[in-house]
Amino acid sequence: MSDSLELALVRPQSGENIGLVVRLCANYGLAAPLLVAPEPGWERAAARTASMCRELLAQTLLFESIEQACEEAQHVLGFTARAGKERRTMALESIHSGASAQRGGRTILVFGNERTGLEDEDCGHCTELYRAALPGLPSFNLSHAVATVLYELHRVSAAPAPKIEERTSTHEERQLLIERVRNTLSQMEYRTADPHFDGALRRLLRAQALQRRDLRILHKILTHLEYREHH
Amino acid sequence: MSDSLELALVRPQSGENIGLVVRLCANYGLAAPLLVAPEPGWERAAARTASMCRELLAQTLLFESIEQACEEAQHVLGFTARAGKERRTMALESIHSGASAQRGGRTILVFGNERTGLEDEDCGHCTELYRAALPGLPSFNLSHAVATVLYELHRVSAAPAPKIEERTSTHEERQLLIERVRNTLSQMEYRTADPHFDGALRRLLRAQALQRRDLRILHKILTHLEYREHH
Repeated sequence: MSDSLELALVRPQSGENIGLVVRLCANYGLAAPLLVAPEPGWERAAARTASMCRELLAQTLLFESIEQACEEAQHVLGFTARAGKERRTMALESIHSGASAQRGGRTILVFGNERTGLEDEDCGHCTELYRAALPGLPSFNLSHAVATVLYELHRVSAAPAPKIEERTSTHEERQLLIERVRNTLSQMEYRTADPHFDGALRRLLRAQALQRRDLRILHKILTHLEYREHH
Repeated sequence: MSDSLELALVRPQSGENIGLVVRLCANYGLAAPLLVAPEPGWERAAARTASMCRELLAQTLLFESIEQACEEAQHVLGFTARAGKERRTMALESIHSGASAQRGGRTILVFGNERTGLEDEDCGHCTELYRAALPGLPSFNLSHAVATVLYELHRVSAAPAPKIEERTSTHEERQLLIERVRNTLSQMEYRTADPHFDGALRRLLRAQALQRRDLRILHKILTHLEYREHH
């Protein structure tokens, strides 16, 4: 998705959740989370739940406000269970087609606190808002919201990109072939006025899997048909 | 995936994790988890982390052994961070193509405890074993493992199934058309011995998106070519 990905927790209340989120950062190879105004006294419980990740826990950075934490970010993605006219949320899975996914830069994933989630004002700082569709209780525990979002992001970014090989035909090459099929058949007095004719050709030839050598063979067939027609 | 899906936690040590898993069951609309020999004294911490889901927490069932918990299940899927010769694990995403995904019945998702995960003996009770590929620390907190697996299962089962319409062509219909193309071209003295010819035809016509009416149009073209050849 981005050149760099970070997490920010806004006013978290539970040290246990902070520790669990640190552990998730370790699972996904991320830096320690940014903490915006956490409830005082979180350190002890966080150290317990971060358990084997205390070094990472020691690297958490503290901020007074969400503006301060997100100052240098290109994209600020908020996650909320609440939707509404004032909150245009998108389904979590659409995060891969969101504006932030198309561009590089520094992206911060922002999660609200345990009791209220992101407030309207926090949402105002977000460039995009997402929610997970759940069949039951519509709101996750904070650390589970983080776990789910990180899994979804990693699931897609780690998947091998579809190979586009040199030998795969291009859209333009397929268009030229369609044009030629139509011409050849016209020369052979085939009536191409059938309303479904164009659609059928397009469905036949739009297959991305068609290779250059496939198109060469089809051109050879057309050459043969034209030759026979004229000799 | 299955007619019914349940969770089992084997020898969980932390009441907090039990409560968090109960909350996840509420998020995903599942029954309360089956608990196999939990560490005594879990109830209080579980009540705290299950918070708004205490009714569901009260419905957890206790078992003495994994055999007892899984007695009536058709499929027992285990989740483990450890892989090895003795443990044939599959990537989490492949859970949708696993044997249990193909058949109905009662499926139990089994998670080991916080310290050791599933033991070899527990794995012996599982019909399939899965692991999540993580770029960092290779082992999840127990409740995050559950969160990730439930998200992955829900993500796919909630997605709309691809529409298979009546008008879509079948493999057999496409095979017949390939045969006829070959015959017509032979009649027209087109040399079909090109080693790439068969592959090209298959790539051209294997497109599942080809509709019945597309095939009709292609047959019409072939009829036309044959007619011109013989008159």
